[in-house]
Amino acid sequence: MPAVDVSGEFETIAKLLAPLAHPEWGRGLVDDVAVVPSRPGFDLVLTKDALVEGVHFLPEDPLDTVAQKLLRVNLSDLASKGVEPFGYLLACHWSQRCGWPERQAFAEGLARDQKEFGIHLLGGDTVVTPGPASFSVTLMGWAKAGRVVARNGARPGDAVFVTGQIGDGFLGLKAAQGALTLALERIEALIDHYRRPMPQTAFAEVVRDMATASLDVSDGLIADIGHIAEASGVGIELDMERTPVSLAGQAWLETRVDRQAAFEQLATGGDDYEIAFTAPAADEAALRREAERRHIRLTRVGQVVAGAGVRVRFEGRPVELARAGWTHG
Amino acid sequence: MPAVDVSGEFETIAKLLAPLAHPEWGRGLVDDVAVVPSRPGFDLVLTKDALVEGVHFLPEDPLDTVAQKLLRVNLSDLASKGVEPFGYLLACHWSQRCGWPERQAFAEGLARDQKEFGIHLLGGDTVVTPGPASFSVTLMGWAKAGRVVARNGARPGDAVFVTGQIGDGFLGLKAAQGALTLALERIEALIDHYRRPMPQTAFAEVVRDMATASLDVSDGLIADIGHIAEASGVGIELDMERTPVSLAGQAWLETRVDRQAAFEQLATGGDDYEIAFTAPAADEAALRREAERRHIRLTRVGQVVAGAGVRVRFEGRPVELARAGWTHG
Repeated sequence: MPAVDVSGEFETIAKLLAPLAHPEWGRGLVDDVAVVPSRPGFDLVLTKDALVEGVHFLPEDPLDTVAQKLLRVNLSDLASKGVEPFGYLLACHWSQRCGWPERQAFAEGLARDQKEFGIHLLGGDTVVTPGPASFSVTLMGWAKAGRVVARNGARPGDAVFVTGQIGDGFLGLKAAQGALTLALERIEALIDHYRRPMPQTAFAEVVRDMATASLDVSDGLIADIGHIAEASGVGIELDMERTPVSLAGQAWLETRVDRQAAFEQLATGGDDYEIAFTAPAADEAALRREAERRHIRLTRVGQVVAGAGVRVRFEGRPVELARAGWTHG
Repeated sequence: MPAVDVSGEFETIAKLLAPLAHPEWGRGLVDDVAVVPSRPGFDLVLTKDALVEGVHFLPEDPLDTVAQKLLRVNLSDLASKGVEPFGYLLACHWSQRCGWPERQAFAEGLARDQKEFGIHLLGGDTVVTPGPASFSVTLMGWAKAGRVVARNGARPGDAVFVTGQIGDGFLGLKAAQGALTLALERIEALIDHYRRPMPQTAFAEVVRDMATASLDVSDGLIADIGHIAEASGVGIELDMERTPVSLAGQAWLETRVDRQAAFEQLATGGDDYEIAFTAPAADEAALRREAERRHIRLTRVGQVVAGAGVRVRFEGRPVELARAGWTHG
């Protein structure tokens, strides 16, 4: 850390962020660098994701949940690769609305998730921007040497699985914008998912040991499965009606006339932060056992075949997609 | 990498950034993570600095130089700690003005400095923001285990040194804003320093082997020396008239009536990206030899004493400072 910017930045670092620092490697955030000792036999794995106000979170979102979302979208990346996280560097680009109470709330959100996910702050930068707030995190974790799951290992005969449920990212944004009519408890659950998605960190070791290819679902289930197909040089058949849906998602589906179009929206909406992966079809029973032990929902949504691209079916009929991924900004 | 944002981000990654990726550890930027093998016997050193349009660079600055400044302010942090850099993660928050030609220019600036400083892109995130552009880099380097110079090692009897020249950051901003009247070649040199400061990477190994405490001068020479004094629990006497000044700085000094006030502006202006450090006074001759071998200017500006804080003198008389550091934003 140390900021070049003195409009409250030194105080922000000393009072709000230094208490979050890794006891040793973060150097109390009083130095310009973090120092992480080598861990022989392990690879260091890094990911970096940014959130921008008005794009990835809403101006009225409380800053403690913005901080949590920031960590969680990065935690989701590492979990999907089978990696155990330990620390992060943080860049805060505060907007004018980020006064001391907002910064306190942000630090509280970080503290809460540091405790929940066992990570520490290592360093970073804090500055004020004349525009909307934005934040970025570089998250670091360890993996046994050579054991990070890639995108390119899917093989014909593998099955395609996804953890948790798909579509709450899409519905959560609509709910946060006040554009959904559902029971209040459903709306609240969706808004909570939008603000604080839950990364599947408990499933990381299963992915590490059993997946042939994996990623987290951020662009949309179909688009992200397409990334695996492309990187692996294979085709993937996806049965869209198998897309796992939450209770809120079920309630929303019941309000739709065109069920296929509704499923398509859920499977292309993105912002889900679940893990999509491929594994030998013969391992399905073992995977189900591991998921059940962790109380994680696991759904087989398709299979890997020779060829290229994603072929989507709905109740057995081929589907022509209007859009595959998630665009915004 | 992989962006959640599809408004040109996939193309930006594939065409502009993937060619900059580390041949192995960056995974071609097609995965969500970078994977860096452990280097037994070495510590991994990380730093993260951000640049915001309108704060750290000007809206009219060419984007190739913005990219270079972004890398260089981070390279300066590692150089000042005696650390050899190898790679970085990048977050681009593009503004509306960042079309394809601007993004191309940005990538060209990165490519130029990757070559000059021997580093590679490892991953990151690219998004569009409705506000001013901002960028952040997490730069990584190796240091022999336990050999990263801290801020807290200064001891009474040490001398205080600074590389290069001080004040061109302050004057460079004025020049870029059109607020200086000097010969054209001086103005051009100052603007170039503002846009593309030169980190003292060649001096990093000298710092590593000989400094007791060090940092790079970003907040202002006096403020940054104050950081060393505070962290080390010592006092520092600084002879302000010894502040090393460039030819452009000399020319500017000659236009000033109050020489002491002018030196104070240079020594508090910041954005210099030189290395300030302490070392045993007895090592001065050896330090000078190392600096000369590398064609680097080295100036002894003060000494470490018992006590606390920075005592600034100008031509032997104590100076009461109006301001010690650099504030903006």
